[in-house]
Parts: sequence; C-alpha cells; structure tokens
Amino acid sequence: MSQLVRRYTAVRMRFVDVIARKRDGQALSREQIDEFVAGATNGGIPDYQCSALLMAIVLRGMTDEETAWLTDAMVRSGERVDLSDIPGIKVGKHSTGGVGDKVSIILAPVAAACGVIVPKMSGRGLGHTGGTLDKLESIPGFRIGLTIDEFKNVLRTVGTSIIGQTASLAPADKKLYALRDVTGTIESIPLISASIMSKKLAEGSNALVLDVKCGDGAFMKDPSQARALAASMVAIGTHAGVRTEALITDMDAPLGCAVGNSLEIIECFETLKGEGPSDVADVVVRLATRMVLLAQVESDQRAAARRVEEVLHSGQALDRFVRMIDAQGGNPRVADDYSLLPLASGEEMVTAPRAGYVAGLRAEALGRASNVLGAGRSRVGESVDHGVGLKTRVSRGSRVSVGDPLIELRHRDGRGLEAARELCAAAIAITDEPPPHRDKVLGELR
Amino acid sequence: MSQLVRRYTAVRMRFVDVIARKRDGQALSREQIDEFVAGATNGGIPDYQCSALLMAIVLRGMTDEETAWLTDAMVRSGERVDLSDIPGIKVGKHSTGGVGDKVSIILAPVAAACGVIVPKMSGRGLGHTGGTLDKLESIPGFRIGLTIDEFKNVLRTVGTSIIGQTASLAPADKKLYALRDVTGTIESIPLISASIMSKKLAEGSNALVLDVKCGDGAFMKDPSQARALAASMVAIGTHAGVRTEALITDMDAPLGCAVGNSLEIIECFETLKGEGPSDVADVVVRLATRMVLLAQVESDQRAAARRVEEVLHSGQALDRFVRMIDAQGGNPRVADDYSLLPLASGEEMVTAPRAGYVAGLRAEALGRASNVLGAGRSRVGESVDHGVGLKTRVSRGSRVSVGDPLIELRHRDGRGLEAARELCAAAIAITDEPPPHRDKVLGELR
Repeated sequence: MSQLVRRYTAVRMRFVDVIARKRDGQALSREQIDEFVAGATNGGIPDYQCSALLMAIVLRGMTDEETAWLTDAMVRSGERVDLSDIPGIKVGKHSTGGVGDKVSIILAPVAAACGVIVPKMSGRGLGHTGGTLDKLESIPGFRIGLTIDEFKNVLRTVGTSIIGQTASLAPADKKLYALRDVTGTIESIPLISASIMSKKLAEGSNALVLDVKCGDGAFMKDPSQARALAASMVAIGTHAGVRTEALITDMDAPLGCAVGNSLEIIECFETLKGEGPSDVADVVVRLATRMVLLAQVESDQRAAARRVEEVLHSGQALDRFVRMIDAQGGNPRVADDYSLLPLASGEEMVTAPRAGYVAGLRAEALGRASNVLGAGRSRVGESVDHGVGLKTRVSRGSRVSVGDPLIELRHRDGRGLEAARELCAAAIAITDEPPPHRDKVLGELR
Repeated sequence: MSQLVRRYTAVRMRFVDVIARKRDGQALSREQIDEFVAGATNGGIPDYQCSALLMAIVLRGMTDEETAWLTDAMVRSGERVDLSDIPGIKVGKHSTGGVGDKVSIILAPVAAACGVIVPKMSGRGLGHTGGTLDKLESIPGFRIGLTIDEFKNVLRTVGTSIIGQTASLAPADKKLYALRDVTGTIESIPLISASIMSKKLAEGSNALVLDVKCGDGAFMKDPSQARALAASMVAIGTHAGVRTEALITDMDAPLGCAVGNSLEIIECFETLKGEGPSDVADVVVRLATRMVLLAQVESDQRAAARRVEEVLHSGQALDRFVRMIDAQGGNPRVADDYSLLPLASGEEMVTAPRAGYVAGLRAEALGRASNVLGAGRSRVGESVDHGVGLKTRVSRGSRVSVGDPLIELRHRDGRGLEAARELCAAAIAITDEPPPHRDKVLGELR
C-alpha cells in the first residue's frame, strides 16, 4: 500500500478531492469527469480510487449534465464508427435486455425494408438466455465478427447489418464495467445509462430508439426505475445531438413464446411471415414506426405505421432478413427450412397441475430454465447450446384444464432437465379468476 | 483488470454481496466484518473492493454494534499488549488531537501520582505542531521506542510510561487508514472511532478516558460531530468491556499558551509546578479525576478531585514526570534547567495592530504558524525542529492596546518567519466589545 501511495501521490493529491466532492453530494466538473475516465482507462488513477468514486456516484447520483459528460468522455476513450459516407439518416436501436427478447433481429430488417439505414452492434452480455449475437449464430455460417468495412458494405447493400461490438468502441466502459461488476457499483442509473449510451453513440448513428425493459425478467424491476433510466438515456442522446427516443416495455413475462437461440430465430422468421406471437409484432411495429419517423422516411405517425405494416405483410421485411443473413455468410435457406438450425432433439412438456387461468409466467424463472438447459452462459466466454430452450404454449390470461400443455422444453440428452422442469413449475401461476389485462408498452419518451 | 477479476473471482462472489449490502443501507454481520478486516489486511480482498465498501460505509454509516465488531476485528488483526501481570486497574488516555495539546504529558504523571497505572502509547500522527512523541523527544535522551518489557518495567516502577505505538498493534488500521487517506473515506464517525479505539483497546488498558477536541483547530469542527464521535467511541469501549468515558473540549483556541515541542514541554513543567496556564490545568484536573475514579483509587468525585489537586500542588506529580523521564533515558535535570532543551534562539514578537479585546485566537492558523517555523511535519517521516514554535501572550477576552505583545515567535534563523507572522496576524481577531465567555469543557460522556 505505502508503495502505491507514494507512486500515486501526484495524482491523488488532486483526485482524492474529486472523490470527496462527489462523496459530499456535489456535481463534478467536465474536466474532473474527463480526468476520471482517462485515468481509469490508462491506469493513471488506481482502481481503488476509481471504485471509491463509483460508489460515491452510486449513492450520490449524477446530474443529467454530469452523465452526458461521463458518456462523452467514455465515447472519446475509443474510436467512433464513421458512417457519414453512407447516405441517409442512420437509426440505431438498443434494448436493455430481457427474456425472449428477439426484437432487434426482426426490427432491423423491418425498418431497413422501410428505407431506414439500421446499423446495429450488440454486446455478448451475460443474459440468462443468450444475447442477440448468440441467437444469430444459431444460423449456420452467420458471421457476427465483420470488419467495419464489411459492416458498411452490408449496410449499403441490404440497409441493415447486425454485428458484435468491436473492442475499440468505448474501452473506458469495458474497464469501468469490469470494476463495477466486482465492487457492487452496477446499480446506478447514471452509470448504467452512460455505459449503454457510450457504446451506442460510438456506433455512429444519427438517431436512436431504445427499448427499456421493465419487470421480473429485466434489470429494472419497477416502472419508476425504468422511466428514470429511459429519461437519463434520452437526455444523454439529446445532449450529444443524437435524436433519441425510448419505449418502456413489460418484461414480467417473456416476450413472445420462444426462449433459447434457435427457437427464437424460428420465432423471428414466423413473425416476419405474419405468423408470430402478437406481442412481439406489436413491439416491433411500435419501434419500427418511430424509426421510420426518426429517419424522416415518413413525416407522420399514421403513414409510418402503414409503411411498417406493409413491409411486414408483403414479405419485404422477411426478404431483407434473408439478404442480411446471406450478406453475413449465413445459410439463407434456413428461412424455409428450420431443420437447418441446430435444434436439440429432446422434447418434454410441462403441463398444468390444476385448472384455472394463467395469471403469470415469471420471465426470470423461465430465463433460468432455458439457461440450465444450456442456452445461456453464467460466465464470460462460456459457450452456449444453440439448440435448447423452451416455448410457452399459454400466455397471461389463458384458460387451462389439468394436464394441458404449458411449456415445451427442448433439451439435449436431458441436461438440466429436472431443474428446468422445476423452474417452469415455479414460473407459472394458475388462479381461479382471470388476471387483469396488462399493456406490453408501459411508456414512451421522446 | 480482467486478470485481477479472474484471480479474485472466488472471493468476489461473496464479497461483492457484502459491499452491495452496505451500499443498500443494511447492517453487516460480524462474520462479514471479520472477513473484510482479515481480507483487507492480508490482501485477500483487493484494495478496489475495500475502498468501495469504505465509501459505502462513509455514506451509509454503521450501527454501534457493527462499529464495535469492526474495532474488535482490527484489534485481533495484531497483538494485544498483556498488562495483566501488572497489579491494579490500568487506565489509558487518548486525545483526538489539537493545537497546543500537551495534556497527556501532564495528565499521565498526575494520575500515576494518585495511584493510577497509566500505560500510554501514542501515534506519530500528522499534526500541525508535532505530536506527544515529538514533544517528549525534545527532552535530551528521552526514548519513546521502548520494548514492551521495558514499557512494563517503567509502568511497574513509575506508574506511567509514554511510548510510541508498535507496528504490531492493529495492523489492519494502518492498512485501512492508508487506503482511506487516498480514497476520500476518512470522514466517517464509525471509521474514525474504530481506528482510534482499535489501537487503544490493543494497548491492554482496563479503562479509558478520551479527550475529544472540537473546534477550529480540531478534526471535528462542530459540537454535534464531536459528541457523535465521543458517543461512538464510548459505545465501542463499553462493548469491549473496557469502561470508557469522554470529555469534549474546546479547540477553537490553542490549549494553553505554548505551541511547539520544547515550548510545550516547558509549559508541562510549569503546569506541574502550579504555574501553568489555567485552561491546561483545568482539563488535566478534570480528566485525572475521572481516571482516579475509573481506577477505583477513590470512590467519589470530590475525594478524587481533592487527591488530584494534592499531587499537583505537593510536587508529587512533577516528581513522577521526572522519574518517568529518567526511566526512559531522558535527562531529568531538564525539569529545573530549561536551557537543556534545544530551544531556537530567534525571537520575534507579534503585536496588537489596534486596541480592543481579543475575541479569538484561531487554533488552526496558529498551528500552521508553528508548522511553517518547523515544529510539525506535513508528510510522514519528515523530521521536526524541537526548538521552534510560539507562545500566546494573550487569551480570549484579554484587553490590549496598540503595540501590546500578542504572540512570541521562536524561530531558527528566520525560517518560515514571514509566513508565521502573517498566519498569526490572521489568527487573532480584536474587537471593540469583549467576547462572551466560553467554557473549555463542552460536554462529558460516561
């Protein structure tokens, strides 16, 4: 310690004052925030000072202005993708993540088919059920690791491309997130929104739609938290000159029926064919409509919504998805032949133990069920099984009799089956009275 | 970072939950606190996790029980001095530190002369004007680095001994303090009181009196903070089965007249001869009376106070001090011949710029004045000049005319003289009306 103290004396003489300032509930200056982000990234400020400041931020908060500065400093810690040579308004999309959330994979080709340029980078994440990249990698041959030039070529020819985030985007976020993860400093609206937005802003879009998930299966459990996160991110985007809108959507139950990589890809195709679950289509249409407006392809809401419905029903959106798959090395025939997907062969049905109404399908437990079957990872770098997962056969409000199918499990040689069965049983509540209706979209911020 | 994360994965899986618990305002268990202190001391918990928890403690607080557990864990991180083979109740003393605070040096022989065993260990500290150890080292030959056996021998023969804290006492405190110093986590009543009390409890006394300083020249600026610190320390002592009492005393102005090592030693002798400043004698008598009661030498307050006055006036207390000096290798003749002290020869007087009443002598500025003359240190390990400092010629409420002496500076070859002169001028306020009376003792906790 004393060696460290000596080594960092020059820095600490100033930086300890920055920590004390936030500890005492005062706002930091732009220069102080820049110093923090630069020092955290290049090691000039030791981890123990960074984590003390992070905890002070968690407990004292940050103003919208401080959060915008923090985000900007994190963006400047790395490269910013330059999409200016692709004509048109580029509209990005981000979801805070939830169980069965396959919206991006459907939304990107829908918006692209409407004429919006949709560049989308995803993180690998630690989701219970695999992330967008894992789902896409179910498709044989699909490459998420394009170079920026390849990415831009796909954007030019198809109008959308979904790839993995490159390490050169917002490296400060990577560093800070790793430190937050081990110091109990994840749970902070300003830190979460700066983390998300630093990567989104570095992706170089001109506008952004956000899907902030709220409920049992989401990071934000209650609507007031979700609204605060949405408001914070919209403020950051606005401050950075990127038009940003947010939808707050329910994540008490999984979105759609499928949870697990290949199963969700099938549900994406079904939705693009007009045969998917209505809740998925509803969220996609809602977000796509906003993207069409943000891209100035249409100038009024009804025209934008009509255009979105049209590309969905005409098959144009499905065609975009197939072209994107093709452009990124995947087998496009998968759209018509789901047996090309690496689906596991084991099937088992969880049935209703009693008659009544399905009052709830707890997303978190269902996510864990899919995870124990092998669909997700609990540690960075673990591989996932693209072929396992589950499909709900009922939804909130469904009437069931004893023995009716509730959840179809897709397993590989029984791995995790017993635990998954128990989690599913715990996830589904059956009551005598039907539950009250609940909207999927809980709020919208522009 | 990622390497560190991997290395500490096993620890963090549990410890990040401990951090989150405190972050969320919950109390930690005894086991969690033990784990923290052990891990912080042996490196099993990385600094960045420790500092995050420390910041959460600063902002969320700790209950008296948690603070007692923290203190106990810090005591157990090192050795505890065993004084059980010395007969009688051992009463320790601690001051939170202030400008001109020479109370321990007078109090220890006073209480010892009353029949109390007074073992006293002091830290080197970073005080503006040198600490108790620096003051004692003004005495030619005086050794503060006795072994524990030598310390106990002096205690047996003289009844009191004052030495430096050994590194084996509460090493967790040393480690945590160094980390707190660079992470903005000093300012916390539970952390301050645990830090102080861990060392005091490790010293092996059966009872303890605390002098909590409050005001301009003290760490605690306002009485409510000082009372909270006193209450926290008394609770820790009580929890540990060590009877603990606290006095809260004013530190807006320096205690006594002398500030600086040799000058303060002279004031100690003068006080023990009945010729010192009355505020010093008052605090000494007050604390010594409590020590006599805690040691059960007397059983009522008036008898205890009488005994204290008697040893002061009879010269018995002075005799104890001389014997302690002798036993610790110092030149005992210094008591009668102050010229044996390394007093600097430069003298200069700061005089009154106007007529009126002395409304205040700001302790902090006077401490800095003494410091710039060379009496203190601003960095661990710096040497101090035992011969420089200052003496106030007036006190709060004194009536002065233009040109009257206010402060006598003792300097070495003019070093720091100009800055000291300016600090003194800034420290003394002269008003037309006399200031209201203010008690030196602001409160007492038992």
